[in-house]
Amino acid sequence: MPAARRILVINPNSNDAVTRGLEAALAPLARPDIAIACRTLAEGPFGIETQADVERVTLPLRDLVVREAADATVIACYSDPGLHVCREATPRPVLGIAECGVLTALARADRFGVIAIRARSIPRHLRQLRQMAVIDRLAGERALEMSVAETAGGRDTLARMIAVGRDLRDRDGAGAVVMGCAGMAAHRRALEDELGVPVIDPTQAAVAMALGLVAVG
Amino acid sequence: MPAARRILVINPNSNDAVTRGLEAALAPLARPDIAIACRTLAEGPFGIETQADVERVTLPLRDLVVREAADATVIACYSDPGLHVCREATPRPVLGIAECGVLTALARADRFGVIAIRARSIPRHLRQLRQMAVIDRLAGERALEMSVAETAGGRDTLARMIAVGRDLRDRDGAGAVVMGCAGMAAHRRALEDELGVPVIDPTQAAVAMALGLVAVG
Amino acid sequence: MPAARRILVINPNSNDAVTRGLEAALAPLARPDIAIACRTLAEGPFGIETQADVERVTLPLRDLVVREAADATVIACYSDPGLHVCREATPRPVLGIAECGVLTALARADRFGVIAIRARSIPRHLRQLRQMAVIDRLAGERALEMSVAETAGGRDTLARMIAVGRDLRDRDGAGAVVMGCAGMAAHRRALEDELGVPVIDPTQAAVAMALGLVAVG
Amino acid sequence: MPAARRILVINPNSNDAVTRGLEAALAPLARPDIAIACRTLAEGPFGIETQADVERVTLPLRDLVVREAADATVIACYSDPGLHVCREATPRPVLGIAECGVLTALARADRFGVIAIRARSIPRHLRQLRQMAVIDRLAGERALEMSVAETAGGRDTLARMIAVGRDLRDRDGAGAVVMGCAGMAAHRRALEDELGVPVIDPTQAAVAMALGLVAVG
Amino acid sequence: MPAARRILVINPNSNDAVTRGLEAALAPLARPDIAIACRTLAEGPFGIETQADVERVTLPLRDLVVREAADATVIACYSDPGLHVCREATPRPVLGIAECGVLTALARADRFGVIAIRARSIPRHLRQLRQMAVIDRLAGERALEMSVAETAGGRDTLARMIAVGRDLRDRDGAGAVVMGCAGMAAHRRALEDELGVPVIDPTQAAVAMALGLVAVG
Amino acid sequence: MPAARRILVINPNSNDAVTRGLEAALAPLARPDIAIACRTLAEGPFGIETQADVERVTLPLRDLVVREAADATVIACYSDPGLHVCREATPRPVLGIAECGVLTALARADRFGVIAIRARSIPRHLRQLRQMAVIDRLAGERALEMSVAETAGGRDTLARMIAVGRDLRDRDGAGAVVMGCAGMAAHRRALEDELGVPVIDPTQAAVAMALGLVAVG
Repeated sequence: MPAARRILVINPNSNDAVTRGLEAALAPLARPDIAIACRTLAEGPFGIETQADVERVTLPLRDLVVREAADATVIACYSDPGLHVCREATPRPVLGIAECGVLTALARADRFGVIAIRARSIPRHLRQLRQMAVIDRLAGERALEMSVAETAGGRDTLARMIAVGRDLRDRDGAGAVVMGCAGMAAHRRALEDELGVPVIDPTQAAVAMALGLVAVG
Repeated sequence: MPAARRILVINPNSNDAVTRGLEAALAPLARPDIAIACRTLAEGPFGIETQADVERVTLPLRDLVVREAADATVIACYSDPGLHVCREATPRPVLGIAECGVLTALARADRFGVIAIRARSIPRHLRQLRQMAVIDRLAGERALEMSVAETAGGRDTLARMIAVGRDLRDRDGAGAVVMGCAGMAAHRRALEDELGVPVIDPTQAAVAMALGLVAVG
Repeated sequence: MPAARRILVINPNSNDAVTRGLEAALAPLARPDIAIACRTLAEGPFGIETQADVERVTLPLRDLVVREAADATVIACYSDPGLHVCREATPRPVLGIAECGVLTALARADRFGVIAIRARSIPRHLRQLRQMAVIDRLAGERALEMSVAETAGGRDTLARMIAVGRDLRDRDGAGAVVMGCAGMAAHRRALEDELGVPVIDPTQAAVAMALGLVAVG
Repeated sequence: MPAARRILVINPNSNDAVTRGLEAALAPLARPDIAIACRTLAEGPFGIETQADVERVTLPLRDLVVREAADATVIACYSDPGLHVCREATPRPVLGIAECGVLTALARADRFGVIAIRARSIPRHLRQLRQMAVIDRLAGERALEMSVAETAGGRDTLARMIAVGRDLRDRDGAGAVVMGCAGMAAHRRALEDELGVPVIDPTQAAVAMALGLVAVG
Repeated sequence: MPAARRILVINPNSNDAVTRGLEAALAPLARPDIAIACRTLAEGPFGIETQADVERVTLPLRDLVVREAADATVIACYSDPGLHVCREATPRPVLGIAECGVLTALARADRFGVIAIRARSIPRHLRQLRQMAVIDRLAGERALEMSVAETAGGRDTLARMIAVGRDLRDRDGAGAVVMGCAGMAAHRRALEDELGVPVIDPTQAAVAMALGLVAVG
Repeated sequence: MPAARRILVINPNSNDAVTRGLEAALAPLARPDIAIACRTLAEGPFGIETQADVERVTLPLRDLVVREAADATVIACYSDPGLHVCREATPRPVLGIAECGVLTALARADRFGVIAIRARSIPRHLRQLRQMAVIDRLAGERALEMSVAETAGGRDTLARMIAVGRDLRDRDGAGAVVMGCAGMAAHRRALEDELGVPVIDPTQAAVAMALGLVAVG
């Protein structure tokens, strides 16, 4: 019997609750022939909020990618930490959720909006979008101004996301909304129902693309 | 028992051999809970080579999309015929293989190349890439100068694809190659093995994204 | 005596009142040696408001262009339906009014604004502008939120156009305004007088370019 | 009897032979109700080849535009000297032939090429195209490496233009060619016949647009 | 003893108070081995506010640059008058303060804002930014709506600059602010202290770059 | 007596010969009132050639920047490692040599070329240029295909640089050339003399900008 194929989804922060949230969000994508394994990066900070947090996880992430040698790897943090160094370290696909979330939004609507956790992340995200050369499709990015922890667990998160999502849709002209944090996953469906435009969970988007790449080999 | 979910993949030309080729290319993506149904558009021409061919299939395609009411639809022609009118006709996802092939290439490499069937299609493809606002990632597009029929069946197709792919990689700097026709699907793996860079079959790319969208509902 | 040269201006909707409005708007452009013939597309819908309306007129338009074999053809609908298929069908110039209206605005001011009939057309127009690769000159697009019929005939149209034009000029920084519908033609001069910046009727712009192309032959 | 409307076409160099060439090129555009008056700028150098030549004609051009008070003015030099200061000096349309030549090319083909007189002008033209925000439509620019005088009069000019035009079409992918000097006007039709793609004389293009603007008032 | 190296800083308006303001602003950049000589252009207008003002100083500026033959020249007006003709006239570096101010801002923050004197200059500045191909980094430009004279001397200038700078920072997302006039130099430090983001005096920026170019020879 | 102001120039590789080369290249920029201190990053690899090399030095660099608390810091590696995390860690200016080298080239010529050490770095550099939103000014990038060590010391380096520089100038149209490695510094003047267009050493460019920022405080 051949070894099962496997996609590694790494939560680069050390908050296991976020990892469990990813598992829940990814459960509908499960298929019998390709395992989806979610891992918490032990070396990660509790939340990735600063550029220093991003840099700190880069090499441990790379080491984990090499060690696990999965058929494909998804880096489940919207800053796509370590994306290029991981790609250098393995010939197998390594996908970042920011890239895949945005690319999937581009397949759903003319222009997209992004819900950020905090305003200070927006310049970092704009750098990514310019680097990707897709920024002309950005309708706007707006911040919840909550911490990663609050976003994942707080009672008011969905209400804030709906308010921000409406501004993206009605003021900025976004035809789809990307949730700019892996920790927002639980709210995707409710937010989409409320807004009436596609809402993209970037981890789901990346895992879907990874499944496709692994399946066709 | 709930009705099974289903992705409709439409070959807009009337060449059943191409449709069977799509079925073969998509077989590895099959999962038990979501059916992938490939359909030939009866009204389509034998091959879609001109803008007139594109326009002729647009409304029959739209009608088929509405009639079938699948959970998601993939238009399996690299000109993405009828994409916007189909999206207008249904709230469910409609994906074009040119869009999804290119977007998937953007998740694999810095710049991508495209293998076209004929040089006269290149301006049409450039219009699509500018419309998508991703053209700054294009390394180059080069043509086989073969007909759709020759491409699907001819003995020399793979050899020509390898030669063109090498030019895209070595002269133009492409880090990934998109096959610019649904009929090239059978050659993906051999071409990738030969070139040593990711080769994207756009129909596989689109169906992978569609599976993700349907799975998360 | 040589056959007179002739420009065909096609109103792709079946509303003869719009065609007569075009004739009135184009009367000042008349010159003795080149005829300007306005035609209603019999197969067109009463107004072109959706993508389906656009697609429905594409092939009848192409057939009319081929049948009439004018020295140049202008497609007088701001969605430029069938532009590329008509160009494929004849070596003679085929001009779209959206393209020509925007290009003429670029010769008058640094950035331009567009008055749309309805907000739902804006993503379609943005796709055109990105496809044309001129979107960095767009100051903004704003909608009247009236139907094509209301726009052509309603008493309040000019007042709404002035209000929207002022927003384009003062809030968005537009130095010229393009009227985003062939049916707005009657209001050009009054709107320009009111706004004090160039106002472009796209059908006049396209016919002026067509006259130049035909005259130099 | 109302004063006749009039378009002023200024040749900013002092070479009357070029002005007479413009008159010949514009003769087919003549219409009874709008005069096209070609003027040589007395203060101009014999040819405009350097940036200093451009700057030297700027204010004399502006003064001539103000003094003549035509209904519209065309600056017939491919460097568009004085375009912005002339626009500031009059509310009436002032058109530059480089802008109008390129904009007209955009209405004829997906990407355009430019035939320059000398390679040292190319950076200046690229600055114009970036300033116009249309550079993504440029297929390429190639130089004859002849002087303005040679271009206007030399026996070999057409042969060189054909050779350069073929490179633009076949190597660079240009679907239309803009002649990058007012002095090339006599060769437009022969070049177009030879290349089989639209060839744009920029002065004809600008005067056609000016006629349209003046006619609709 | 070798002749001392020297940077020429030209104030193209004839207002000596502005030149003395430049001297004060540049004093901190002085180094013993390279002189910084500020000159008023005798032929300049009292303030450069229009395109005609820009054009009037172009050739006198060029003549002064050639006559002085400094090791490097800085044109100290935010419209960068005569930049390209001066560069043509000498192989030595000629720097414009608008270019250098913006380029220095790009080394400090993700996106920058510009404080203009008057709104009517904004289209001119946008043309420069598109020509430089850096406009995707512009967060916004806002005007004080004061004259050059008021800006240099008026008591209320700093207060207006702070108000406009806050809008650039908070509404437009600017991470650095460029002062869009040489006459604002005296307010740089106070404005930076107030805003808490880098504030760039473009003349200081240009002279710093010129010093580097001259020093390395 | 106030503490002297100081610019820290960090060579992030551990090759002291490169650091001494930087000291030599920067000697002409020395001024009495601001010290320029070159440091070798002890933790760095012998050369930075891969993305992993880049990532490895990021946090040690950041720590050194914080520890030294210089008035400004220059990261002297053409990959600009750690640029954003260092900026987050201090309110004082942190400049990357790739950014500053390119920005300085933009002040000297219309389009620039880059000499890379190896072809595999080019996609990384293109990402930077897209992220900076200045890629429309890139004429081309070409590689020496030598190691960092060979480049710094080898006898043939200058000859290879001249050959590559000529291709950038003559084939790609570069009006200025950026040396894409801190270790090339010794060859700047000889290369510029040979090519006849400005050649930018990026470390000199960055230190010149840093001197300006520190001097004006």
